[in-house]
Amino acid sequence: MNVKQLSLSLALVACAVARSASAQPAANNDPLPSWNDGQAKAAIVKFVQRVSDQNSPDYVPEAERIATFDNDGTLWTEHPMYTQLAFAIDRVKTLAPQHPEWKTRQPFKAVLENDLTALAAAGEKGLMELLMVSHAGMSTAEFETIVKDWLANARHPRFKKPYTELTYQPMVELLAYLRANGFKTFIVSGGGVEFMRPMTQAVYGIPPEQVVGSSIKTRYEVRDGKPVLMRLPEVDFIDDHTGKPVGINKFIGRRPIAAFGNSAGDREMLGWTGAGDGARLMMLVFHDDAKREYAYGPANGLPDTKFGAFPQSLMDEAQAKGWHVISMKHDWANVFKGAE
Amino acid sequence: MNVKQLSLSLALVACAVARSASAQPAANNDPLPSWNDGQAKAAIVKFVQRVSDQNSPDYVPEAERIATFDNDGTLWTEHPMYTQLAFAIDRVKTLAPQHPEWKTRQPFKAVLENDLTALAAAGEKGLMELLMVSHAGMSTAEFETIVKDWLANARHPRFKKPYTELTYQPMVELLAYLRANGFKTFIVSGGGVEFMRPMTQAVYGIPPEQVVGSSIKTRYEVRDGKPVLMRLPEVDFIDDHTGKPVGINKFIGRRPIAAFGNSAGDREMLGWTGAGDGARLMMLVFHDDAKREYAYGPANGLPDTKFGAFPQSLMDEAQAKGWHVISMKHDWANVFKGAE
Repeated sequence: MNVKQLSLSLALVACAVARSASAQPAANNDPLPSWNDGQAKAAIVKFVQRVSDQNSPDYVPEAERIATFDNDGTLWTEHPMYTQLAFAIDRVKTLAPQHPEWKTRQPFKAVLENDLTALAAAGEKGLMELLMVSHAGMSTAEFETIVKDWLANARHPRFKKPYTELTYQPMVELLAYLRANGFKTFIVSGGGVEFMRPMTQAVYGIPPEQVVGSSIKTRYEVRDGKPVLMRLPEVDFIDDHTGKPVGINKFIGRRPIAAFGNSAGDREMLGWTGAGDGARLMMLVFHDDAKREYAYGPANGLPDTKFGAFPQSLMDEAQAKGWHVISMKHDWANVFKGAE
Repeated sequence: MNVKQLSLSLALVACAVARSASAQPAANNDPLPSWNDGQAKAAIVKFVQRVSDQNSPDYVPEAERIATFDNDGTLWTEHPMYTQLAFAIDRVKTLAPQHPEWKTRQPFKAVLENDLTALAAAGEKGLMELLMVSHAGMSTAEFETIVKDWLANARHPRFKKPYTELTYQPMVELLAYLRANGFKTFIVSGGGVEFMRPMTQAVYGIPPEQVVGSSIKTRYEVRDGKPVLMRLPEVDFIDDHTGKPVGINKFIGRRPIAAFGNSAGDREMLGWTGAGDGARLMMLVFHDDAKREYAYGPANGLPDTKFGAFPQSLMDEAQAKGWHVISMKHDWANVFKGAE
């Protein structure tokens, strides 16, 4: 090897090192392979180009490229019930022997009797209360362990897989595509923030500090000389409906330029996002694929549901305001990773 | 130019492009020029090396390098009173003609009579209430404009400069040094989160979504067909003392490995940070420099204060737990940018 060859080799090695440390991998292939060609995919690609091209009149500086995602029904399956509710049911059953009074008290009675109709009738806030009450009294660290154990062992009743494998592959690709284009991706979900945080980094590439959700109160205590945060049976914040813009302002402190949801609970988040100046992208996942996942509305004549309802009024609002509706059946080539 | 030379040139150009896009600039100079050589500076540099060297037994992955900073008295001046209190006083005086009842009601009476003793006696929560009550009734967007206008025009009574120029240059260098070494820097302050967010990016390089603070409640409303968040005269969260670990868990969702404060209100944040496993750095700024800034304790016999008190018990706790105390007088070569 002569000096020039050596120099070339060294330069290439240095270059490879520098490249491996840089944030943006070269993207030669379609970054959204699980999306069928169509209006939804085209809208995403066009929007990202508009806001990230410095010569575009709609250019948005990277720091302001905030995208928020609902979780249940938008990033992962929410049927036959919210995953967190399945977790709550398992916990309540585990703890039931210590709480004989639950046998006659709703919504615990419904849980112990596997009465899903009575459970659903308790509404989102009732379900949240069930979850919170049944999960208070331990430290935040203990709760994290409980959640991780459950996520590792529980299986979805229909798909017989861990819930963390029932994330939507097209949305996981979308998250990565946005981040590769300078976006900061956040979850803004009605789900409990401490239920989501143990899995969001591994599953979505979203770190805990970018997860906004509902919460119960915690209290600082010193236990055996060590500080702990104890989870109290008291709702702190419900991050749903009008709570979503409130939560976005409180936790993120700036308005998203893109927002993704799938149900009536996301209406205000999309409205808040769309009310800002400049280019905006608002999208709703519509579950119309009973074969590969589930089909529910009641928009477009699909069956109604207590978990992630998409009423006709939301479909009408989407059309009136230019929010894109993603048809799971038509827009997604794959639903789950490796499912097809 | 032969083929090998051309290849070398192309490789070097590609390499330069890749390097310019990477996050870490080459640091040939001292990254902390406003710090005098001494134990505090040495502790910072040693800690950063320990956690960022992949071959160190104390290595911490970048994602977990969370550092939290108090704001008042840690990143900028808090005397003769909290900056936010100076803002509140100006606002109350501006609004006073519309509120004749304030003439006889504390803490408003104290504000209108320039009675700092009575104001300080109202305590941190009283001061917060004054601030919140006097600032409710407008949208979050309107409040942001009011804060920005005030910050642009108000001047510190002693230094005759905008408050945003009274940030501590050594701490601004420390923030940048940590970020250059893969840390994510957060503010965790008793101050109002919406008072800080309009200036933290420009002044500290900290984006709004990395600012945790006290807050009042907001309500989502639709005004003239557009959604707004209205600020309500109701305290939502006090991010001080035990509220700091609670706020860290709520907003960040993981434990910091480094925490910086300057007063009794930061005790629990430093304790919470130190209670985690692995390498940790906890530091307290001690204001012992009446000439260049202010001197207050009451630790070490310095005068007591209602704004950022550093009692002897905190000094003792720092020594017992290995928290580093930064002497403004001895450890800082400069206090403010361009002041010397």
